[in-house]
Amino acid sequence: MFRKLLTYDEAKKAIEQNLKPKPLGIEEISLLEAYNRVLAVDAVSNLDIPPFHRSTVDGYAVKAEDTYGADENQPLKLRVRGSVHIGESPKLSVGSGEAAEIVTGAPIPEGADSVVMVEDTHRQDNELVVYSSVTKSENVQKLGSDIKNGEIILNAGQSLGSREIGVLAALGKSKIEVFKMPTVAVLSTGSEVTEPGKPLPEGKIYDINAYSLCTAVRESGGKPIYMGVVPDEKETLRKTLEEALISADAILTSGGVSVGPKDIVPVTVDSLGKPGLIFSGVALKPGKPVTLGLIGKKPIFSFPGHPTSALLTFHLLAKPVIRIMAGKPPQETALVKAYATKRMFSAKGRRTFVTVRIKHDDAAKRLVAEPVESGASGAITTLAKADGFVEIPENQQFIDVDEQVVVQLFSETW
Amino acid sequence: MFRKLLTYDEAKKAIEQNLKPKPLGIEEISLLEAYNRVLAVDAVSNLDIPPFHRSTVDGYAVKAEDTYGADENQPLKLRVRGSVHIGESPKLSVGSGEAAEIVTGAPIPEGADSVVMVEDTHRQDNELVVYSSVTKSENVQKLGSDIKNGEIILNAGQSLGSREIGVLAALGKSKIEVFKMPTVAVLSTGSEVTEPGKPLPEGKIYDINAYSLCTAVRESGGKPIYMGVVPDEKETLRKTLEEALISADAILTSGGVSVGPKDIVPVTVDSLGKPGLIFSGVALKPGKPVTLGLIGKKPIFSFPGHPTSALLTFHLLAKPVIRIMAGKPPQETALVKAYATKRMFSAKGRRTFVTVRIKHDDAAKRLVAEPVESGASGAITTLAKADGFVEIPENQQFIDVDEQVVVQLFSETW
Repeated sequence: MFRKLLTYDEAKKAIEQNLKPKPLGIEEISLLEAYNRVLAVDAVSNLDIPPFHRSTVDGYAVKAEDTYGADENQPLKLRVRGSVHIGESPKLSVGSGEAAEIVTGAPIPEGADSVVMVEDTHRQDNELVVYSSVTKSENVQKLGSDIKNGEIILNAGQSLGSREIGVLAALGKSKIEVFKMPTVAVLSTGSEVTEPGKPLPEGKIYDINAYSLCTAVRESGGKPIYMGVVPDEKETLRKTLEEALISADAILTSGGVSVGPKDIVPVTVDSLGKPGLIFSGVALKPGKPVTLGLIGKKPIFSFPGHPTSALLTFHLLAKPVIRIMAGKPPQETALVKAYATKRMFSAKGRRTFVTVRIKHDDAAKRLVAEPVESGASGAITTLAKADGFVEIPENQQFIDVDEQVVVQLFSETW
Repeated sequence: MFRKLLTYDEAKKAIEQNLKPKPLGIEEISLLEAYNRVLAVDAVSNLDIPPFHRSTVDGYAVKAEDTYGADENQPLKLRVRGSVHIGESPKLSVGSGEAAEIVTGAPIPEGADSVVMVEDTHRQDNELVVYSSVTKSENVQKLGSDIKNGEIILNAGQSLGSREIGVLAALGKSKIEVFKMPTVAVLSTGSEVTEPGKPLPEGKIYDINAYSLCTAVRESGGKPIYMGVVPDEKETLRKTLEEALISADAILTSGGVSVGPKDIVPVTVDSLGKPGLIFSGVALKPGKPVTLGLIGKKPIFSFPGHPTSALLTFHLLAKPVIRIMAGKPPQETALVKAYATKRMFSAKGRRTFVTVRIKHDDAAKRLVAEPVESGASGAITTLAKADGFVEIPENQQFIDVDEQVVVQLFSETW
């Protein structure tokens, strides 16, 4: 275990080197249930699409050479052999001087190589007058022209939306292999917190973190297990964590990581098994007490009790791990440039994150970033009011008013 | 019913005026299951948060005036009355010359109005030496300072993510009222399409649209009901649609809307009830045959069979309706400016949408929009390869090469 306060960069390195996170495995699911899941293997087509030469218009399948020279003034005549039905293998073939009626999407019959559009023809019984010539393959979508047998269509790691699921359906797949979703147990500690939905005793406040972190797990591609509030009592906490280690792939706790006499989380995590605590404390603001344990291959992230700190440290340190376990690629953060409305101070020697709201300054005709106060006042609403955050490096004292800053945006999937 | 081909703008107006879409109703669900749901009523706090004056540090609760003048050189002494326990109503009060031990988050006891930090004190038994003065309310988060009783915290229509769900938990809510999700039945028509997962008979192709549209329904906040492929046969189609009208709030079909002899969808939809067909055909490219029916209050959108056309017309015309039914606000589309790599032609008199891929032109140091061919060739992979689309107005013939265009981006939630 690291005895010193790690820098933010050291903490990220320690996570990578100790946890070595990777996807948890593969499961087969129905393609209809695959929305937002992550493809676990490359999707390879085992058929040509279309699987046959296909007409792209309503008209008559012909030999192109039979139409050469035909125009409005010099139409030519072909004999209609019959019709090609859509959705069926053609039961006829087209010889010289012959044509077969065909609709959009139907297979081109043997002998034909092109299709004359119906509006360029006139039919009487089995006699077809053709007013326009076609070239070879005209109005034909050739076998395999969209997707070739053996072609890789989507790569492993791709998240699945309507467009990707449509393409997989085209390959004839009704089941696909996706990465398993990591299950993540979430609990809050603290004698002062009560679960929402229960009466609020005097001196207590409602728990926020188990709810916000369960949702953050979903946003990261994991499956949360809500374990509620655990009293600040070593034996109960230990038993709850042992239980969570059986059913979950990772654990998130909040509260009880500072240095007060009741801050029993780090020591309890360390007692659960090997290797135990990895680090306790990172030079961050907010979020300094954030603690990481590893029991076997299962990480236990312990966040501070302050709701903004908990969600921010989750975002910085735990979310990338859960995303990897879920098979997702690193998240791209949307960035917006804006001008600081106030001086924003950093905490000496700590990577500082200032939550800000973005507004348009109509007078100055520019976007501005206005700090949303959090800090000691506990402000629960800080995050809900903010649009994103500004990051200040360890060696910078402050960002000055009117200085341009890059705001990392919270998104719907933050 | 409109007999003429509507313009895109007329079609949108016809939808608004005939469907008058609105949210379908409200249901109460667990806050833990509320991720991505839409809040149906304003969330009003019925308590002050914090519900008591709360210490923001570990230290001693005191009367501020007792500490005035104290510093390193002139410390003063107070008598420790006892401790305030976290999560409990204080069992003691603080008089003049007195102090009470307190931890972060614990309630300020009666008589005290501020907290001296532990690092500014020295304690020996019940004698406390104070090396620093505090002002009234210093290190105290006052009752209601974060959220006031009666305050509106979130507005109806808000989609719920980790931050919003955290704020609702703070109010003590374990259940909340959200808009019901519209159920949307999805079916494909066509004798040439086969459901994925089944063997592919000669002359047929796999159905794409029921899968991509089911997923698009989820992306729009609805709950899809997959009804598979219905043969191009009037009676079967009619029975399937009647069944769908019982269980679903809206219906999506694809295929069978062109003018071929087998295009039986519009006439069948019209026969289902009143008012029947609203329009059949919109001056769009792709997507011209798109058809809208309304049976009672339930819309039936019928898209062309071409996968790109189906998904695009869904996005343009049906998605806004499903979002309103789900209680969601209008979607904001992300826009990117880029330069056309090729001349992009519009279809005369039709609003044209050209799917494009965005690339960085390293030589020219700018983003370029490269058309992804679709059109008659059916290209299933068109959408999966594209990043977004460029819209060309009805009265514009083409966009020239090197002209700057605005690309409307597909997003994960497209």
